[in-house]
Amino acid sequence: MNKQVNRAEGMEAYDPKAPGFAPFTSQIPAFLDGASTPRDYLERCIEAIQAREPQVMAFVCQNLEIARAAADAASQRYKNGNPLSPVDGMPVGVKDIIETQDMPTEYGSDMFAGHQSKWDAACVYWLRRGGAAIIGKTVTTEFAARPPGKTRNPWDLDRTPGGSSSGTAAGVAARMFPMGLGTQVRGSVMRPAAYCGLWGLKPSFGCINLEGINPISRGINHLGTLAASLEDMWLSLHYMSRNAGAEVTRLSLPGATEMPAPEKPARLIRLETPGWEKTPDDVRAVFDAMLESLAQDGVQIISREDDKDVDAFEIMMGDVLEISDVLRDWESRFPVLAYLDRSPDLLSQDVHSRQDIMANLTADDFAAARARADAMQAAYAALETKADACITLTAPGPATIGMPTGDASFLDPCSVIGNPALTLPLLASGGLPLGVQLGGFDYQDRRLVAQGLWLRDFVLA
Amino acid sequence: MNKQVNRAEGMEAYDPKAPGFAPFTSQIPAFLDGASTPRDYLERCIEAIQAREPQVMAFVCQNLEIARAAADAASQRYKNGNPLSPVDGMPVGVKDIIETQDMPTEYGSDMFAGHQSKWDAACVYWLRRGGAAIIGKTVTTEFAARPPGKTRNPWDLDRTPGGSSSGTAAGVAARMFPMGLGTQVRGSVMRPAAYCGLWGLKPSFGCINLEGINPISRGINHLGTLAASLEDMWLSLHYMSRNAGAEVTRLSLPGATEMPAPEKPARLIRLETPGWEKTPDDVRAVFDAMLESLAQDGVQIISREDDKDVDAFEIMMGDVLEISDVLRDWESRFPVLAYLDRSPDLLSQDVHSRQDIMANLTADDFAAARARADAMQAAYAALETKADACITLTAPGPATIGMPTGDASFLDPCSVIGNPALTLPLLASGGLPLGVQLGGFDYQDRRLVAQGLWLRDFVLA
Repeated sequence: MNKQVNRAEGMEAYDPKAPGFAPFTSQIPAFLDGASTPRDYLERCIEAIQAREPQVMAFVCQNLEIARAAADAASQRYKNGNPLSPVDGMPVGVKDIIETQDMPTEYGSDMFAGHQSKWDAACVYWLRRGGAAIIGKTVTTEFAARPPGKTRNPWDLDRTPGGSSSGTAAGVAARMFPMGLGTQVRGSVMRPAAYCGLWGLKPSFGCINLEGINPISRGINHLGTLAASLEDMWLSLHYMSRNAGAEVTRLSLPGATEMPAPEKPARLIRLETPGWEKTPDDVRAVFDAMLESLAQDGVQIISREDDKDVDAFEIMMGDVLEISDVLRDWESRFPVLAYLDRSPDLLSQDVHSRQDIMANLTADDFAAARARADAMQAAYAALETKADACITLTAPGPATIGMPTGDASFLDPCSVIGNPALTLPLLASGGLPLGVQLGGFDYQDRRLVAQGLWLRDFVLA
Repeated sequence: MNKQVNRAEGMEAYDPKAPGFAPFTSQIPAFLDGASTPRDYLERCIEAIQAREPQVMAFVCQNLEIARAAADAASQRYKNGNPLSPVDGMPVGVKDIIETQDMPTEYGSDMFAGHQSKWDAACVYWLRRGGAAIIGKTVTTEFAARPPGKTRNPWDLDRTPGGSSSGTAAGVAARMFPMGLGTQVRGSVMRPAAYCGLWGLKPSFGCINLEGINPISRGINHLGTLAASLEDMWLSLHYMSRNAGAEVTRLSLPGATEMPAPEKPARLIRLETPGWEKTPDDVRAVFDAMLESLAQDGVQIISREDDKDVDAFEIMMGDVLEISDVLRDWESRFPVLAYLDRSPDLLSQDVHSRQDIMANLTADDFAAARARADAMQAAYAALETKADACITLTAPGPATIGMPTGDASFLDPCSVIGNPALTLPLLASGGLPLGVQLGGFDYQDRRLVAQGLWLRDFVLA
């Protein structure tokens, strides 16, 4: 950890309190009164791309012509006082696991080089319909799984940006766009957001239609947003959920379009998860100091030592990786076995290594794993009587050196359970961002954001 | 109804007791002992296509070369005593709302003329992996909704085959393939099966992965099988559910691969549904005579007059169309609004007429309709304490003259509730097939089939 830090052009040591990238939605009054325009905002993003993309490599491809046209149309609407939605004119990076009508969708795989469905995914369709300026496709790991892409962490180019939503996270951190789309099967929204110093929301399972997103592991896949501000993160996610609709058997998130008021939690459950034992002492100390200041401010912190149900849930989480593996592998059989039939030479060793496991799983194996996941979900839901939210780290430390995308031990539980999880870029360690994770309860994403607002004000005050 | 009947080449008046199209799965012993082969079976299907397709027009396109190669490979496996699955070598017709790697998928829409994804849908992938001989794509109404295709009913070419799985139903009835795939949002598996004298199963919601099927109204869409025999219908559906996996939050059907033993129901609830009031007296009489013979055999028939909960459920079903409309239209917003943006001139008046409704619906409208559907589902599930299954008609009469695809009043409830529903081709009216519907309980599809076996033996004895 005593290595020289290799920052991207113009980046400084990470400081959670430093004035950051101006939220797009905070500019709306200026757009309406003519002091600025979405086109101006976009051009500043394009300047950041020109300065940093050669080092950061966040994009697979860009379509700046379409983005500029969208920003100009939005500029005119604000001038007329009639923006279409909270995302009207917002520059957006789209993870390259999500289809776009004007650009290829390559899933981070040589097998899909140049692949173009010619249709937008449901989420992208609604973003464009709301006026967003889709700026480009961002680098993903192969099929949003392990094998990393080319992207580097802007805070230290020798470190991973985290994955699988690598390009989206690095692009926002490098100020190339204020908000981008990611997907999470294990930790792929939360981890890159934390490693890159961003706000990230893995929402309640199924609250946004995944149509047009590669279907691997759809049953535990979540579309989320990563952003430089809590406001851009939430308003864009809420807009998509309310308009694109939900996954089958699920609902759009309830609640009003506006930001909620900050909510101070009275009680927080401090969860260790399987991640805590992997966390070095210096990182633990940074987190514990924050909890201590919360306790001094009157927030009751409940740990496994304080409550036998919390302890039982901690023990239950010990099985989460085993459960997650079965859920993911069963729901990868289609289409991954079809990919292996078609073009084995174009797939990574990681995919090949799972072929026999996938082929030999049965519907009964899946049903048994699902029943264990449901039991964990029920145990988590019961914690709602004890506290307003759960709190833990997002990763066992800052972004690691080298390109493997990092550890998901703090994140597997919320992916398997499906509860909403928010990562807050409120801490730092060695000049690098360190994420705090708040876990909420099913469909209460808006309340989680309200608690995140309070915590932001509290920690950064 | 006194019109001359215009049957397809070689078809006779419909008689439920007549020896029908030999089930594919009944030939397996002959395939194993070398008395016959799947290739022989396929060639008989191709003879039927040559004789009747010019009149029936069941297909959008065919790929007999691929089908023959699959049948030959299966023939070799049976010869070696190692068939891959219950569908090894089975000729299958695939509704053209489902993607196939070797043929276009046009969704019954001019907008998608020649459209080819180059990948099989999950269900087709697993059928092929199990050795099935995919014979062609069958005619669907536009996007599996109302505007009919070109297909005619083989029992009377002046009548609709029913829709939206029109080509699959007509193709099986004309003996072009023993089993085919259909999808049902309102009545699109059950109705064409009934109109064409077939067995059809709309299984428990979500028990088969719909990946690669057009996503319109996915939240109440069901993949089902239509077949000339209960055996081919069930074994192929069960195989797909066990291998392709389920929709998110749902499970594959439980139970063994073999056919269940027949099960005599002790008690049946006779449901009227919104369909009964549309049913003419002569059709009611045919159905009531069957119930009378069941009662004489000791099966207790429970009607709304006998039980206040059944009566309450009948009243509740009066709202089903209103609920179904909101569920369907909300879950059509994507991709139908995108289709309208792209190519309005290539879409039917039916699609255009729903544009404003779709655009103006809100997530709260959907949530309210979903809550009403959930209440109906709970009321239906509670009936399980009172009876082994529900029984009613599948349609208010035989196939109607002209091409509108017919009435779904008997079918909307099971589509909205998601319970399994089986149509049995056990009755006739005026030389045309008349379907009986058995409704089962969630995930108990196998038990419903067991009751269907008993009812078949009882009625046809």
